[in-house]
Amino acid sequence: MPLDTPKDPAIAEKAARDPENFALANCIRALSIDAVNAANSGHPGAPMGMADAATVLFRNHLKFDASNPDWPDRDRFVLSNGHASMLQYSLLHLTGYADMTLDQLKNFRQWGAITAGHPEYGHAKGIELTTGPLGQGLAMAVGMALAERRLAAEFGDDLVDHHTYVFLGDGCLQEGIGQEAISLAGHLGLGKLIVLYDDNSITIDGPTSVSFSEDVPARLAACGWHVQSCDGHDGRALDAAITAAKAEAGKPSLIAMKTVIGFGSPNKAGTYSVHGAPLGADEAALTKEALGWSAAPFEIPADLAAEWRRIGARGADARTAWEERLVAKSRDVRDEFTRRLSGRLPADYDSVVKTSRDRLFAEPKKAATRKASQMALDPLTEAVPEMIGGSADLTGSNLTRVKAVDSQYSREAPGRYIGYGVREFGMAAALNGIALHGGFIPYGGTFLVFSDYCRNAIRLSALMGIGTIYVMTHDSIGLGEDGPTHQPIEHLASLRAIPGLTVLRPADTVETLEAWDIAIRNRKVPSLLALSRQDVPQLRTQAGDENLTAKGAYIIRQFGEGRDVTLIATGTEVALAVEAAEALHQDGMSIAVVSMPSWELFDAQPLDYRKATLGDAPRIAIEAAGKLGWTRYVASEDDVIGMTGFGASAPIDRLYREFGITSDAIIARAKALAGK
Amino acid sequence: MPLDTPKDPAIAEKAARDPENFALANCIRALSIDAVNAANSGHPGAPMGMADAATVLFRNHLKFDASNPDWPDRDRFVLSNGHASMLQYSLLHLTGYADMTLDQLKNFRQWGAITAGHPEYGHAKGIELTTGPLGQGLAMAVGMALAERRLAAEFGDDLVDHHTYVFLGDGCLQEGIGQEAISLAGHLGLGKLIVLYDDNSITIDGPTSVSFSEDVPARLAACGWHVQSCDGHDGRALDAAITAAKAEAGKPSLIAMKTVIGFGSPNKAGTYSVHGAPLGADEAALTKEALGWSAAPFEIPADLAAEWRRIGARGADARTAWEERLVAKSRDVRDEFTRRLSGRLPADYDSVVKTSRDRLFAEPKKAATRKASQMALDPLTEAVPEMIGGSADLTGSNLTRVKAVDSQYSREAPGRYIGYGVREFGMAAALNGIALHGGFIPYGGTFLVFSDYCRNAIRLSALMGIGTIYVMTHDSIGLGEDGPTHQPIEHLASLRAIPGLTVLRPADTVETLEAWDIAIRNRKVPSLLALSRQDVPQLRTQAGDENLTAKGAYIIRQFGEGRDVTLIATGTEVALAVEAAEALHQDGMSIAVVSMPSWELFDAQPLDYRKATLGDAPRIAIEAAGKLGWTRYVASEDDVIGMTGFGASAPIDRLYREFGITSDAIIARAKALAGK
Repeated sequence: MPLDTPKDPAIAEKAARDPENFALANCIRALSIDAVNAANSGHPGAPMGMADAATVLFRNHLKFDASNPDWPDRDRFVLSNGHASMLQYSLLHLTGYADMTLDQLKNFRQWGAITAGHPEYGHAKGIELTTGPLGQGLAMAVGMALAERRLAAEFGDDLVDHHTYVFLGDGCLQEGIGQEAISLAGHLGLGKLIVLYDDNSITIDGPTSVSFSEDVPARLAACGWHVQSCDGHDGRALDAAITAAKAEAGKPSLIAMKTVIGFGSPNKAGTYSVHGAPLGADEAALTKEALGWSAAPFEIPADLAAEWRRIGARGADARTAWEERLVAKSRDVRDEFTRRLSGRLPADYDSVVKTSRDRLFAEPKKAATRKASQMALDPLTEAVPEMIGGSADLTGSNLTRVKAVDSQYSREAPGRYIGYGVREFGMAAALNGIALHGGFIPYGGTFLVFSDYCRNAIRLSALMGIGTIYVMTHDSIGLGEDGPTHQPIEHLASLRAIPGLTVLRPADTVETLEAWDIAIRNRKVPSLLALSRQDVPQLRTQAGDENLTAKGAYIIRQFGEGRDVTLIATGTEVALAVEAAEALHQDGMSIAVVSMPSWELFDAQPLDYRKATLGDAPRIAIEAAGKLGWTRYVASEDDVIGMTGFGASAPIDRLYREFGITSDAIIARAKALAGK
Repeated sequence: MPLDTPKDPAIAEKAARDPENFALANCIRALSIDAVNAANSGHPGAPMGMADAATVLFRNHLKFDASNPDWPDRDRFVLSNGHASMLQYSLLHLTGYADMTLDQLKNFRQWGAITAGHPEYGHAKGIELTTGPLGQGLAMAVGMALAERRLAAEFGDDLVDHHTYVFLGDGCLQEGIGQEAISLAGHLGLGKLIVLYDDNSITIDGPTSVSFSEDVPARLAACGWHVQSCDGHDGRALDAAITAAKAEAGKPSLIAMKTVIGFGSPNKAGTYSVHGAPLGADEAALTKEALGWSAAPFEIPADLAAEWRRIGARGADARTAWEERLVAKSRDVRDEFTRRLSGRLPADYDSVVKTSRDRLFAEPKKAATRKASQMALDPLTEAVPEMIGGSADLTGSNLTRVKAVDSQYSREAPGRYIGYGVREFGMAAALNGIALHGGFIPYGGTFLVFSDYCRNAIRLSALMGIGTIYVMTHDSIGLGEDGPTHQPIEHLASLRAIPGLTVLRPADTVETLEAWDIAIRNRKVPSLLALSRQDVPQLRTQAGDENLTAKGAYIIRQFGEGRDVTLIATGTEVALAVEAAEALHQDGMSIAVVSMPSWELFDAQPLDYRKATLGDAPRIAIEAAGKLGWTRYVASEDDVIGMTGFGASAPIDRLYREFGITSDAIIARAKALAGK
């Protein structure tokens, strides 16, 4: 193919090291410049700086087949510095992903286009995950790499054997979650995770030296990584580095690429002005001239286009060979592998749930809901081998470890239980990565109060629409003596505020089983289980196959005919509501007690059901948490028996009493509302 | 003094290295064992393991005077692994802090005691900050150390010259925020920050090797730290290490102390069973025997008690000398130093605010509220030298940098503007540390969506009751093309849910100035300003000295007599509400438009004011955010013109239109509610 002749001698010198690679990379640079200019918004600098590395990766290393983007054994490509989205859109377009048309590039950042400001999972094939919130792409990639090793252990390296490649910049390495991911990956020896670091010495506030002066390779080496450095515009050096990284099987790899942000731009390269603003028409023209690029905007010379298409089809043989290997497997293995990747649950799943329910009705149990969760997990994880568990160093508190999910995931043997360490954010993002990889239903535990530490990853689960399961125990002041730093107050409200997340706060053993059933079935919606430290009685004792928790709220007790008052409670406070209702009924009042384990599920019920459940009588809500939002269901926050400030350090009974979350308080309010 | 004779030969060997230190440390161990046993809850392992190091620090190095705990130039002691709280309570009691009585130790973790499960700021003198949420103690300490250097630059090393000592464990080093703090401290060369790392090889889930295998000293060395390792039970080695750390002025110091968790316990030392559970009576007895400790529970032998009291008074001479130096300063310097430390604002503050207001009324300005914020900051920071600014690498977007706050804080010169890097959580915690240190009003910026990344630090500001100021720009879908990952939806609700935080979303230049005025005055309450990327007109044009934003909500426009409908809006949507109200009025309706910049401030107003402001007419709320919580003020979420899901990537006008946040939507709903 004819090669570009850069006008700028410094660029020409770099180009000469691998002229074909340079010419192909210029396609990315040109499209990125044009799309950002067309949108008059976006980030051209990083795509221009990383184009050479991306070309080497896609051209020589990345295992993919653009015409079969869902091939399970493809390498995963993660653009952790998501603002460089035009790099990825250019690559997908050039290599021939069907949905990434030229029109989509021309509509970069416009309403309805799949080419959003940051790559959005679900918008287009080849976008493996949503990135933009820095550090999380890397942490999700750790989950992907971790899932790959586990799936290979289950199905063999001939079916599962792919790399996870990550592009990232300084931001991902400055964010704390980046370090959590780095430390965990090094600990687990994820040798097939390869990170290319765009070390361009520029950050939004100026040169990185304003805030970042550490020795990144040394830091990662200290965390057990294989590290290399190279010129990020030297195609041959990049190729050698990636080859060496692949050869290192026992450690994750970092390739620190010295790059120039906005490479090629005569007046803006190497400055922060090219990070997040269009080049503009004049500078675009000068840049293309400097690069030796003469095609019109959004136009790719035919020979280069053809070469990119060839690259996009490069993996077809490998894919075909893989499919033959799958076909050659025994029927059982093939079916199970296919089932696992499809997200379908095992055929006997329903009966396992039923057996568990029946057992609870046969032998009701008083238990903390975290314990109820462990009881539920025991048979469910036995029946659902794709469930993979873990905790952010609170296993004994979260009770996330059970018999089937007991083998510790280590560098030697990738088991089903992952010790994430004291890394809540890294864990949550890794859970997302595991879910995105496919083949697994991941869950992980921490204290509910530390949902704060991983909140943006929970948000990303919801935004991406994936079925990550968060197990959050110690869900109120009921955790007692550890005090206000460990007692969630505002957390239920703040999690309910996240669109697309199902928050479940079950009241007893049965609701906890039902909550798990919902979470496991929900493969497109994340679930968060808020579970108690303290014991609660089993309130659901009437046998039946219906998952009432799935209705979000239902009448769990009716005292008398009609209603003077409706008590609505969640979790551990349902028992308190029942206790109060019994007393009120003895005083002659009629009461319905509504257990409301999930607002989101209840709000999705038909209006008639919601009206019938909530009733017309005055309502009181009881929840040992902040009151914000409850006015969705009750007339005023005065009708909420809950918390108005932070908790305190003391034994649990004392706390409930001091904060006025008592049956006496419920009774008093109910009588006042009913005028009795 | 008579020294303990340990029964256990391994312990005896350690004790022999510094017998006095060992005997003094046993006082801490004994009290910690007794208090945790009495509470039947708590964490004995870490206090027992770190007692030797704590004794060396308090005995030989820490500059403090227990009878004058507020001495501004005291060294700061930060127990970042807050679950080891009994270590600190024991130290405070032994050294003679007046409020830390023996009864308080006996009431460890009980209602009303100042000895909470984790150290709580404000409970007792000597507790410099609230810790427990891991990693944040270290990050707050970075803020303290940073503040110390800046204050010294302003007032001289003869008035400000103290160290910040941090105790921490593996958890703080695994948390991402720990790395953010480490990286920032190394970058800024905070030489007077000294960290003692309790390297006990034990984590809650078992040996640290289940999840943590990095070379911590090498990681910190890569981040520019001075690192040492030593035996954490060898008094002389610890003393030498702290001495060497103090001698290193240009780098923060890490002392990795190899320790035994639960040191002294024959059956539990070195195991995770001693991390978070009482020893029990039997093991307590065995432990004391092994340590050579024969006093009754909660009893300290008189000679050891006397020696500890001597330690507590050790700094009295230094304090007196410091006071003499302060008195010897010029009146101006002394008054200003005292004022700064007292938290009082400058005498001319009110007039500066008034001048700024008057200027806005004289020349109304259309501006984004982030720009209005910068306009407000210009004169305010000029007048209030204790204001110290920064951003998590979004200076040009947050507009947090102004003329008076322009000098970059660097290792060479501690200026007034801190480049926190892409480290939102580290920044937020550092802001808290600066506020806790005293002498400053810290503010820092990021995008509102990234409040997620630093949420638990915002919570801690509120829990501690300190006046940290968060500047959070790009506060809605109004940020446009960057798309849903960068568009806050649930964030306003989730921040309003935090008890004790004042969330301010001003509507125009005047409200933004007023919001800053509120935030600056609020030295015991944190404030969060949610500011827009896009321009808004100045709606407040009628001159007047009253800060209406301080009322939380007020009628900003009245159209016609009485009300058919009340429109309540915040921030950028107030202008939209006014636009709709004008149209409705032309159609013959009477409308009150309520601007509601702060729910918390409004809810604190007298009932009469609230009723008069909200009125009896049907109400509609308009806010480009999730609807949760608005039913506090309107009848139903159907009456909220807001967002029901995530945003999208597109130009701003298109987004508002597509998501139905338009004056047409307001008009339609108003007519429906008013039956017109």
